[in-house]
Amino acid sequence: MSRDSHIVSSFDDDLNQIETLLLEMGALVENQIENAARSLIRRDVEIGEKVIITDKAIDNLEFEIDNCTVRILALRSPKAQDLRMVVIAPKIAANLERIGDYCKNIAKRVNVLVNGRQLGSADITIESMNDFVQEMVHDVLDALKRRDQDKATDVWLRDRNVDQMHNTLFRELLTHMMEDPRSISDCMHLLFIAKNIERMGDHATSIAEKVYYFVSGKMLEDERPKSDTTSSTTIDSDEADELKCD
Amino acid sequence: MSRDSHIVSSFDDDLNQIETLLLEMGALVENQIENAARSLIRRDVEIGEKVIITDKAIDNLEFEIDNCTVRILALRSPKAQDLRMVVIAPKIAANLERIGDYCKNIAKRVNVLVNGRQLGSADITIESMNDFVQEMVHDVLDALKRRDQDKATDVWLRDRNVDQMHNTLFRELLTHMMEDPRSISDCMHLLFIAKNIERMGDHATSIAEKVYYFVSGKMLEDERPKSDTTSSTTIDSDEADELKCD
Repeated sequence: MSRDSHIVSSFDDDLNQIETLLLEMGALVENQIENAARSLIRRDVEIGEKVIITDKAIDNLEFEIDNCTVRILALRSPKAQDLRMVVIAPKIAANLERIGDYCKNIAKRVNVLVNGRQLGSADITIESMNDFVQEMVHDVLDALKRRDQDKATDVWLRDRNVDQMHNTLFRELLTHMMEDPRSISDCMHLLFIAKNIERMGDHATSIAEKVYYFVSGKMLEDERPKSDTTSSTTIDSDEADELKCD
Repeated sequence: MSRDSHIVSSFDDDLNQIETLLLEMGALVENQIENAARSLIRRDVEIGEKVIITDKAIDNLEFEIDNCTVRILALRSPKAQDLRMVVIAPKIAANLERIGDYCKNIAKRVNVLVNGRQLGSADITIESMNDFVQEMVHDVLDALKRRDQDKATDVWLRDRNVDQMHNTLFRELLTHMMEDPRSISDCMHLLFIAKNIERMGDHATSIAEKVYYFVSGKMLEDERPKSDTTSSTTIDSDEADELKCD
């Protein structure tokens, strides 16, 4: 093997390693999303504990990806799509790490919720919102793997649905709290869980932007249509009574 | 001027530009933190509106920093501390952008809170928590400017206090909600605002880690002591009654 081809091959190895680490991290995060939801829906503290422990492995992968990036930049001078991979990898890793953190946070709250009452319909909405976001994460990683900018755009557009589910849930939980002040503590935790899942969706969307840039070299131009209106949601007691009658 | 010195000087210009953009972004974000709090405490919708509009300028600065980074990496081969600056700049920009988003979110919630009652003590705790975080952001940017790794470590350690303030506030607001269900909607927004400020502190801490790495070339090793226990906080009605008597 000539010296040149040796250099080329080991540069490719480095680049492949970044992608392998990213996809490994992604698979782990997908798993965490599923387990966090399972632990929540079943109020299963043991699964929750597993999610909390596994988070460390995700943090370590982010650290490894960052190191790999710095090594490539210090030793090689990547160009074009290779450079774009090196630039987006630590950012995607940071997004995945945050999604992992949200899973951990959900798992922690299960420890409190395990002693409370089930809030039937809210649980179901949270579960379907979680499934939806899990699929976004799965698909955006697939878009990265396949260099598929259309699939990335598709994920990016789906964030609107997450926001809408979050709005519904926000109103539902606020109403629960007003109807039955004993449920306030549980509902609060479910509201933060809902917010966590909504933020996971934002991070999947942010990964989609990076995958699009990586594949095409262009930015996803338009401002994404945002539909999260919970920061301006208010429910007064009369309205709560009205909703109760529905 | 020789071709070589021209190249060197324009490389320095590029690097300086990244730092200038970062510090400009930081100053804008500091301002946003202050105005978001002012808008909240005074329930002043106009200042809130200004915060919401200004957020776009922060997003644009992040975009500019990212572009500048890619340009340097594509055209130069930065080494050592220069390379570290290029690597951390887009990450710090992402942290600052998120802090900016939280300010915008706080400002949006003022539109709802303006019609509610003041919740005296909670407002005061939120204000001091906000002041504390604003100082963290100010100091970590100063640490970057001065290449001061000790100051970065100092900011990093302060996150514990933010978590403790957040815990106090979380319990205080939950108690308010239980005492007076009419305050639920307002308290919910204040709880999310408190969470936003707590997250701003996390981002300031994350910037501190990057500044430390930039200056020293090493990672801040130890796991930061976390004191946010709100994900496992619960208050039952009896406890709320008890707290009411204090």
